[in-house]
Amino acid sequence: MKTAIVMGSKSDYPVVRRAEEMLERFGVEYETRILSAHRTPAAAEAFAAEAADRGIEVLIAAAGKAAHLAGVLAARTPLPVIGLPVKSSTLDGLDSLLSTVQMPKGVPVATVAIDGAENAALLAVQILGLRYESLQAAVKEYKKQMEAEILAADEEFQKSK
Amino acid sequence: MKTAIVMGSKSDYPVVRRAEEMLERFGVEYETRILSAHRTPAAAEAFAAEAADRGIEVLIAAAGKAAHLAGVLAARTPLPVIGLPVKSSTLDGLDSLLSTVQMPKGVPVATVAIDGAENAALLAVQILGLRYESLQAAVKEYKKQMEAEILAADEEFQKSK
Amino acid sequence: MKTAIVMGSKSDYPVVRRAEEMLERFGVEYETRILSAHRTPAAAEAFAAEAADRGIEVLIAAAGKAAHLAGVLAARTPLPVIGLPVKSSTLDGLDSLLSTVQMPKGVPVATVAIDGAENAALLAVQILGLRYESLQAAVKEYKKQMEAEILAADEEFQKSK
Amino acid sequence: MKTAIVMGSKSDYPVVRRAEEMLERFGVEYETRILSAHRTPAAAEAFAAEAADRGIEVLIAAAGKAAHLAGVLAARTPLPVIGLPVKSSTLDGLDSLLSTVQMPKGVPVATVAIDGAENAALLAVQILGLRYESLQAAVKEYKKQMEAEILAADEEFQKSK
Amino acid sequence: MKTAIVMGSKSDYPVVRRAEEMLERFGVEYETRILSAHRTPAAAEAFAAEAADRGIEVLIAAAGKAAHLAGVLAARTPLPVIGLPVKSSTLDGLDSLLSTVQMPKGVPVATVAIDGAENAALLAVQILGLRYESLQAAVKEYKKQMEAEILAADEEFQKSK
Amino acid sequence: MKTAIVMGSKSDYPVVRRAEEMLERFGVEYETRILSAHRTPAAAEAFAAEAADRGIEVLIAAAGKAAHLAGVLAARTPLPVIGLPVKSSTLDGLDSLLSTVQMPKGVPVATVAIDGAENAALLAVQILGLRYESLQAAVKEYKKQMEAEILAADEEFQKSK
Amino acid sequence: MKTAIVMGSKSDYPVVRRAEEMLERFGVEYETRILSAHRTPAAAEAFAAEAADRGIEVLIAAAGKAAHLAGVLAARTPLPVIGLPVKSSTLDGLDSLLSTVQMPKGVPVATVAIDGAENAALLAVQILGLRYESLQAAVKEYKKQMEAEILAADEEFQKSK
Amino acid sequence: MKTAIVMGSKSDYPVVRRAEEMLERFGVEYETRILSAHRTPAAAEAFAAEAADRGIEVLIAAAGKAAHLAGVLAARTPLPVIGLPVKSSTLDGLDSLLSTVQMPKGVPVATVAIDGAENAALLAVQILGLRYESLQAAVKEYKKQMEAEILAADEEFQKSK
Repeated sequence: MKTAIVMGSKSDYPVVRRAEEMLERFGVEYETRILSAHRTPAAAEAFAAEAADRGIEVLIAAAGKAAHLAGVLAARTPLPVIGLPVKSSTLDGLDSLLSTVQMPKGVPVATVAIDGAENAALLAVQILGLRYESLQAAVKEYKKQMEAEILAADEEFQKSK
Repeated sequence: MKTAIVMGSKSDYPVVRRAEEMLERFGVEYETRILSAHRTPAAAEAFAAEAADRGIEVLIAAAGKAAHLAGVLAARTPLPVIGLPVKSSTLDGLDSLLSTVQMPKGVPVATVAIDGAENAALLAVQILGLRYESLQAAVKEYKKQMEAEILAADEEFQKSK
Repeated sequence: MKTAIVMGSKSDYPVVRRAEEMLERFGVEYETRILSAHRTPAAAEAFAAEAADRGIEVLIAAAGKAAHLAGVLAARTPLPVIGLPVKSSTLDGLDSLLSTVQMPKGVPVATVAIDGAENAALLAVQILGLRYESLQAAVKEYKKQMEAEILAADEEFQKSK
Repeated sequence: MKTAIVMGSKSDYPVVRRAEEMLERFGVEYETRILSAHRTPAAAEAFAAEAADRGIEVLIAAAGKAAHLAGVLAARTPLPVIGLPVKSSTLDGLDSLLSTVQMPKGVPVATVAIDGAENAALLAVQILGLRYESLQAAVKEYKKQMEAEILAADEEFQKSK
Repeated sequence: MKTAIVMGSKSDYPVVRRAEEMLERFGVEYETRILSAHRTPAAAEAFAAEAADRGIEVLIAAAGKAAHLAGVLAARTPLPVIGLPVKSSTLDGLDSLLSTVQMPKGVPVATVAIDGAENAALLAVQILGLRYESLQAAVKEYKKQMEAEILAADEEFQKSK
Repeated sequence: MKTAIVMGSKSDYPVVRRAEEMLERFGVEYETRILSAHRTPAAAEAFAAEAADRGIEVLIAAAGKAAHLAGVLAARTPLPVIGLPVKSSTLDGLDSLLSTVQMPKGVPVATVAIDGAENAALLAVQILGLRYESLQAAVKEYKKQMEAEILAADEEFQKSK
Repeated sequence: MKTAIVMGSKSDYPVVRRAEEMLERFGVEYETRILSAHRTPAAAEAFAAEAADRGIEVLIAAAGKAAHLAGVLAARTPLPVIGLPVKSSTLDGLDSLLSTVQMPKGVPVATVAIDGAENAALLAVQILGLRYESLQAAVKEYKKQMEAEILAADEEFQKSK
Repeated sequence: MKTAIVMGSKSDYPVVRRAEEMLERFGVEYETRILSAHRTPAAAEAFAAEAADRGIEVLIAAAGKAAHLAGVLAARTPLPVIGLPVKSSTLDGLDSLLSTVQMPKGVPVATVAIDGAENAALLAVQILGLRYESLQAAVKEYKKQMEAEILAADEEFQKSK
C-alpha cells in the first residue's frame, strides 16, 4: 500500500509534513514529491500517468492560490486524487479551495479542508482501508483513541475547575 | 462492491439521480436513502455505524445549507465518506460547501464540487477501483471515452464553421 | 436554572471562558464540557439527549470550521441551543458562522456573532429570564449599567479633550 | 404565552407567514406588526420597550439588507429577540445575515438561517418551552413526527425504486 | 459650520482620531461623542433628534460588526449622515461595510471605505462646502496640494533611482 | 439647487430613473447624462471639472462592475459625489459596491446601497438641505410621511387578519 | 496575425462567440477549439506546446468552475495567454475568476472580467497591435467610435427627455 | 522595447520592486512612476495618452482598494495595460482584484494575481515577445530554468529524506 504526496512548491512542506506524520502513524508507505502543475507540467503529468503502474494507490496534491495541481494529476490517472488546498498570503485560502474543489464533470478531486493535511492523509488511509483490512481496523482504532483522548481531556477539564 | 448514497431530503433527489446514473454506468451496486443528520439523527447514525458490516464500501452524502450529513456519517464509520454539497435557495451553495469540506482534524470528508453529483459517483468508483481491478480499468476506459467525445465535438465544431 | 456549555475542543476555552464569566455575573449555574460532534459523537448525543432530564435548560455550543456541534445537539433535544461560531485559522470565521446558522427547517440553532461568547451567555440568561423573573430583572439592570458605563465613558472622554 | 413578530416591510410577509403557521401549529399566540427600525423608529422602539409589560415573551424580527430591526428591538427589551434575515434583491442575503448576527457585546440577537422563518418560530417555541412544559412536550412530539415523516419518505422512496 | 462624530465604542477612537485631524485641517468645528445604537439607544437617538437644532450640519458615525449606528442616527435626523465602517476582529470589515451601506429605501447613509476616517471627514467638508464657499475653495486647495505632493514624490522617486 | 446624475451606460437608466423620480418629488432640478469613465473619459472629466462652475451642487454617479465612474468624477471636483453601485450580471453587485466605496484617502465617494437609486437622490436632497432650508424641512416632512405610510400599512394589516 | 480561442466545453460557445465577433471586427484571424484541461489534457497541452510554431501569437482560454484551462496552456507556451472566466451554475463566477487569475509566480494569465468575452478579444488585438501597427491604429479608431457612440447616445437621451 | 510601471502610491513600491527585478532579468527597459488615478488624475491621463508616442509598449498599473488606476490608464491608450491588484489593509485584496478585473466592455485590463508583481512583469515580457523574438526565446529559457530549479529542488528534497 503506497501513497504519493505531491506539493506544488517546497514552501508547502510545513503543511505537508503533517500529512506525512499521519501516514507514518498508520504505517502507510509514501513518497513526497515537489512537482508543479505550471512550472514542471511535463514531470507532473508523467508522474500522474505512471503512478498506477508504479504501485501507487492514492495521490495527495497540496497547492495554493489557483491550485491546479490536484486537477492536473487527476486528469492523468484513474487513481483517486485527494486535494489539499493550502492557504496562501491573500484571500485566506478561498482561492485554493475553490480551484481545488470545483472540478468539472468527469474529473473529481476529493477535497479536504484548507490546510487540512492530517485529514488528507487520513482520507488516504480510509481509502486504502477498502483493500487492506488491517488499515480499516486501524482507522476504527484511531477513532476510538481520538474519542478516548477527548473524553479524557473532558474529564481532566472537569477536575481542573 | 457496494455504495450507499444518503440524501438529507427528498428534494435533493434530482441532483442525486445524476450520481445514481453514473454508478449504474459502471455497474456499481448502490442503495439510496433519505436520512437527515438533524431530523433523523438516530437512523442516520445507525446507518453509518452499520454500513461497513453490511458490506457497503463507500458512502456518498448529499446535503445543503449547514450541510452536516457527510460529517455526521463520517464520525461513525471507518469507510471513506464523499460529501456532495447541494446548492440551496440562498448563498449559492457556499454554505453547503464550507459546511461539508471544512471538517476538523480526524474526520475527513472527501468533498466534490457544489451539485457535482456525477463526480461524487465517479470518485466512489475510483476508490472502489483500488479493490476491484475491473473498475480501475473501466475508469481508464471512461476517461478515454470522455476524451474521444470532446475531440469529436471539437472536430464537428471545426466542420460546422 | 442551569446552562450547559459544550465546546468542540479544549482550544476553544479562551473564547468560552468569556461566556462562563458572563453566566457567573448573573449567578447562572453552568457546566462546561468538551464534546465533539465528530470525535465523540456518542457522548455528544447522549449529553444532548439527557440534558433536559438532567435539569439543563439552555445549551451553548461553541465550535469552529465546519461547526456541526450546535446542530448535532439541537437534533437531540427539545431545549433551545445557542450556537457560538468560533473563528479558526482560515476563512476568518465565515465557515463557522454559516455551518452554525444555516440550519435546515425543523432544527433551529440560535446563532450569535463569531467569537461572541458574552452574547451567547447573555442570550442564555435572557431565555432563562422567561422562567426566572429575577433574571429578567437582572438583564434590565445589566442594560442600565452598560448604558451608564458608556455614558460615563462619553463624559470622561468629553473632559479629556 | 405570546410571541410578537415584527417585520420591516409588508413585502417580508410571504416569508413571515411561514413563521406564523409554525406558531399556529403549536398553539402559540402571536401578533404580527409592520414596524421599521429606520422608517418608524419611535414606534419600533416603543413596541420593544413595552413588549415585556404587554405580556410578550419572545420577539421575532424579520428584515433584509442592512437589517437593523432585530438589533434595535433587542436594545430596548430584556426579552430574547430572534433575528430572521430576509434575502433581498442583491448579495443573496449575506448582508441581511451579517447585519443581524454580528451584534456587539451586550446585545445578542438569536439569529436563524436566511429566510428560515419556520425555524425562527420553532426557536420561539423552544424558548417558551422552558416556561410552558406542554410546549416542550410538543416540541419533542414535533421532532418525533418530523423523524417519522422522513423515515416514511425513505420507506416510500425505497419502494418506488 | 459644525460636525458631530459619533463612535459606538471608545475602542474606535484611534480610527476616529484621523477624522478629527482632517476636520481640524479645514478648521471645521466638531464634537466627538461615544454613543451606542445598542447600548445607549436613548442617548443616541436623542442626540440625532436634536442635532439639527443644536446647529450640527453633518454627522459622522463610526461603528463595527453589525454597524447600526449610522442607520439609527439617520432614522432620526434630516441631516446627512456619513457612515464609517470600522474593521473588527473577524470578517475583515465586510460585516461593518454591509451593515452600514445596504440601507433600505428612505434612509440613506453616505458610506465611505472601511476604516476610511480621513475620507469621512473630507466628505463632511465637501458637503459643508455647499454652504460655506471658503470650504469649497479649501477643498480645491487640498486637492491641488495632494496632487503637488504626489507629483513631488514622483519627482523625488525618479531622482532616487 | 441643481443635481447632476451621470450613468455609465444607458442600460443603467431603469435604476437611475428611480433617482430622478425622487429628485422630482422634492422639486430638485437635475440633469442626467450618459458618460463613461472608460469609454468617454475626456467628456466625463470635463463634465466633473466644470460642474461646480455650471451651478451643479451635488453629483450622483451610477455604474456597475469595476465601477470607476464616481471616483473619476470625484477626482475632478470639490463637490460631494454620491456613488450608486449598480448590480450587473455577475457577482451580485459586490464588485460594483467595492469599486465604488473603497476609495483611497483624499477622494471620498458617498456610497449608497447596491441599486439604491432612491437613496442616492434622497442623500443629494439631504446634502442640499444644508443650504436650502426648505429642502431640509421637506426631508423632515418626507420622513413623517414615510412613517405615516408604514403605520397605516401596519394598521391595515392588523385589520386584515 | 493569428489568435487561438480554446474553450473547455462547447457549452461555453455562446460566450466565446462574442470574442470571435470582436476579432472579426478587427480582421484578426482566429481558430476556435474545444479542448479541456481535464478531459483532453494531452490534446490541450500539445495544442499549447505547438501554438507558437503554428504561427499563433495570442491564446484566449475560456473556462468555468475550477478553471484550469488558461493556466494549463500558459504552462506550455511562451505566448501570452488571456484567461476568460466563464460564469457557471454556482458561485456566480467567483470560482472561475479566482482559478484563472490567482496564478503562481512564473506563469501569468492575463485575466479579464467574468464572461468578458469582447474584452478578451480586444486585449488580444491590443497585444497584437504591438507588432501590427495597423491594429494599434484600429484600436485607437475603435476607442474613438465607442466614444462617439456614447456621446451620441447621451445627446439622443438629452433630446428624448 | 520599453515598459512603464505606474503605482498609485509610493507605499506600493515594495510590491512593484519585484516587477522591476523581473523586467531587469529580461533586459527590458522600464520607467516607474508614482501617479494616482484619483489624486493626480491629469498627470495620470496625460501619461497614458502620451505613452505610445513616447515609445512605451506595455503599461503595468499597481493599485489597491478601489483600484481604478489600470482602468483609467486603459481608457486613454491603445496599448495593453496590465493590472496588478495590491492587497491593502482590509478585505484581503478582494476589492483591489474586483476593481481591476471587472472592466466593462471595450476597455480591458490584463489582470494578474493579487500582489503578483513578478507575473505582471513576466506577462509584459511575453507580450513584448510577440515583437522581439529574442524575448520570446528568453521566456522559453526562463520556463526551462524554472522547471530545472524545481526538478533540482525535488531531487535535493528526495536526498534529504
